[in-house]
Amino acid sequence: MTIPPSPQQPDVSVERAAAAAPVPPTERFAARTSGMVASEIRALFAVASRPEVVSLAGGMPNLAALPLDELSGEIGDLVAREGQVALQYGSAQGVPALRAQICDVMREEGIEADPNDVVVTVGSQMALDLVTRLFCDPGDVVLAEGPSYVGALGSFAAYQARVVHVAMDEHGLVPELLEEALRSLTARGVTPKFLYTIPNFHNPAGVTMAVERRQRVLDLCAEYGVGVVEDNPYGLLGFSSTRYPALRSLDRSVIYLGSFSKTFASGLRVGWALVPPAVRDRLVLAAESATLCPPSFTQMVVSRYLEKHDWRAQVKAYTEQYRERRDAMLSALDTYLPEGCTWTVPDGGFYVWVTLPEGVDAKAMLPRAVTARVAYASGTGFYADGLGSRQLRLSYCYPTPERITEGVRRLAGVIEAELEVRRTFGLPAAPAPELRRGSHTPSPDTA
Amino acid sequence: MTIPPSPQQPDVSVERAAAAAPVPPTERFAARTSGMVASEIRALFAVASRPEVVSLAGGMPNLAALPLDELSGEIGDLVAREGQVALQYGSAQGVPALRAQICDVMREEGIEADPNDVVVTVGSQMALDLVTRLFCDPGDVVLAEGPSYVGALGSFAAYQARVVHVAMDEHGLVPELLEEALRSLTARGVTPKFLYTIPNFHNPAGVTMAVERRQRVLDLCAEYGVGVVEDNPYGLLGFSSTRYPALRSLDRSVIYLGSFSKTFASGLRVGWALVPPAVRDRLVLAAESATLCPPSFTQMVVSRYLEKHDWRAQVKAYTEQYRERRDAMLSALDTYLPEGCTWTVPDGGFYVWVTLPEGVDAKAMLPRAVTARVAYASGTGFYADGLGSRQLRLSYCYPTPERITEGVRRLAGVIEAELEVRRTFGLPAAPAPELRRGSHTPSPDTA
Repeated sequence: MTIPPSPQQPDVSVERAAAAAPVPPTERFAARTSGMVASEIRALFAVASRPEVVSLAGGMPNLAALPLDELSGEIGDLVAREGQVALQYGSAQGVPALRAQICDVMREEGIEADPNDVVVTVGSQMALDLVTRLFCDPGDVVLAEGPSYVGALGSFAAYQARVVHVAMDEHGLVPELLEEALRSLTARGVTPKFLYTIPNFHNPAGVTMAVERRQRVLDLCAEYGVGVVEDNPYGLLGFSSTRYPALRSLDRSVIYLGSFSKTFASGLRVGWALVPPAVRDRLVLAAESATLCPPSFTQMVVSRYLEKHDWRAQVKAYTEQYRERRDAMLSALDTYLPEGCTWTVPDGGFYVWVTLPEGVDAKAMLPRAVTARVAYASGTGFYADGLGSRQLRLSYCYPTPERITEGVRRLAGVIEAELEVRRTFGLPAAPAPELRRGSHTPSPDTA
Repeated sequence: MTIPPSPQQPDVSVERAAAAAPVPPTERFAARTSGMVASEIRALFAVASRPEVVSLAGGMPNLAALPLDELSGEIGDLVAREGQVALQYGSAQGVPALRAQICDVMREEGIEADPNDVVVTVGSQMALDLVTRLFCDPGDVVLAEGPSYVGALGSFAAYQARVVHVAMDEHGLVPELLEEALRSLTARGVTPKFLYTIPNFHNPAGVTMAVERRQRVLDLCAEYGVGVVEDNPYGLLGFSSTRYPALRSLDRSVIYLGSFSKTFASGLRVGWALVPPAVRDRLVLAAESATLCPPSFTQMVVSRYLEKHDWRAQVKAYTEQYRERRDAMLSALDTYLPEGCTWTVPDGGFYVWVTLPEGVDAKAMLPRAVTARVAYASGTGFYADGLGSRQLRLSYCYPTPERITEGVRRLAGVIEAELEVRRTFGLPAAPAPELRRGSHTPSPDTA
């Protein structure tokens, strides 16, 4: 395990400015901006959005199952009857009725919470950004699964936190590796600010933290004095009957992030944080300085939706749709992907994490894939430390099963062509013996 | 002029954590949180929201003039026809059609802009927060009018920037005082990162930067290598025929912040930044890490509103309503306020800034005012440096003219009682000779 170097610190002495004269005022950026880089996925969206390309890259939920006519009537009625409130500033913490309903939603995963401890945010991304703002000084260490959510890595970079990855296997975060990281950091005098984890249906790894590992992970963090931030946007989108208790349901000190982006509608940007009381007041202040208050209108749309619609049935409809797509993807991977490829088998959520045969670079291969009319997210974007070059994320959330199958078929062709080139030039093409086709290890090169 | 001390810097050495063991993980906050304090206005909102209290404290626009039935139909139609887009993730920079329309809106104030340089944000508060994120390292100096918008001070504090106030008179920011501040800072080796200014219908001061001062302010900032951030939420809400050109219309390097909160509906939280190309890409990245993207839905509501409604007529209706309320407030101030009080005469926007007779402390008086069923925002909240104790902000945006008159009458009674106490105890009660009742100096104690 390596800790990234500390970020360059701004020189706060008043003498500083003398030397900076030639830089135009609009380019005298803060030191933290040096960590801001466009994600590979983002650069990719433009190319991959051409209709002839099957995009397995994005994480857009498929909203086809939404009853737009009913929603249209409800939302119109909301504007007519409650417009004076819905179109007005609201509380920085969020609409009280919605905060109570959010507690009902979280109860589905075993969480008992007080609406006073819920802070509504503009998507859970904002909650994550503000939690990082509250806790991370430049140079602070954050633990995160490797790979991890690209948007989290972006927020950590924006606050100049250093990310130390802990690897997963097919049962999620490996407690022994977490303990090793904690021990090693402690020996160097570093207490990470928190462990950032996506226990359920991981983005991008597609694996889920085994139930029996959850208490162990919490115990380890408690033992080493490290907080836990649980990001759970996909928790209700499980394909099997297995119930995964939220970490927050086992430990009230966990900071829990939730979202309606995947269970209702991402374009409303309504998410939340459930935090211990010691954190709440500061989080509300941070939220106030970030946006004054979240939009009353979108919150009241979600609140009315939860009140008037059978939202559990809607989640079930979404889940069925994603399960069908997941099946199509796994079947196509099994049919088309060449020897030496491995992938995870998600039990919920949106993603499959694929490891390519040794010597094939997913990022270098991407332009050729797009030429072959298939797009994916290459693995390095999901690591803060340059790992993941042999990996890629495939998402099955948006395209139809037929498109998914066709996309995987095209991807297989591109990988075959890469392997062919390697054979032609005498490069090692055989898979490493420990890599079995279809095995479920998310990132063997980080274990 | 004094520069506040540099913020305490986090110690980024890896040895640090050893001493921090006893603090629970959820309380190991970043250094920047020490600057986060609840605004006086915020603490006040809860008390002042009782119906018997006339609140002259808040800045809520009065939405009574909005045609809710029409909007209800339009928004319902939007969901039915374009719900698959409106309820889906969108671009981090904002909906393209809306960015083009925003350029039309800005053209009203003489700004020529390219939609590619517009970044839509969750209210202009988010734009302000992100601009501060992009430019301010801890300890950096920001120039701001004294007094200044409390939400700006909150964002500057969140990024540990130091605020140096420059005083205004009845014609807004005083160029000579700006020059003095720039010269003094330069002599100490400090180049402020930017001047944050609200040129039109200032919050809280109620004054407007004279047209003939605008180029001078821009020239001074250019001469000293200091950027300009122009915050203009009230620009279209002017009461007279005077046209104030936006600073951005005079200088393309100005970072311009705009909002639909006061010209359409605050509860949608749709604002924007217009920035030079060198800033744009970084701003989009920062926005992405803050919220991924602004809500597609609220942006499309605004876009459709601008397309289908006569939004200029709506702005005119709002303006008429605010002018009537402004007149009621000025008339009541003139009728009721005791000798020794002075106030500004706003030519637009929401606010009047009142200076109390010497020896009367607006913050200390507030609980007695609320007991007398009137609320205001005391002046110290609008300064980063503790000034403003004799000042208070009155807003006329929300209550009816009758309520405004009654509120000012109550306020006058509270001030009279304060003066009576001072006379009883032999404290100086007479106004200082330079303070004339009704004169238009926003903050004489800061000049």
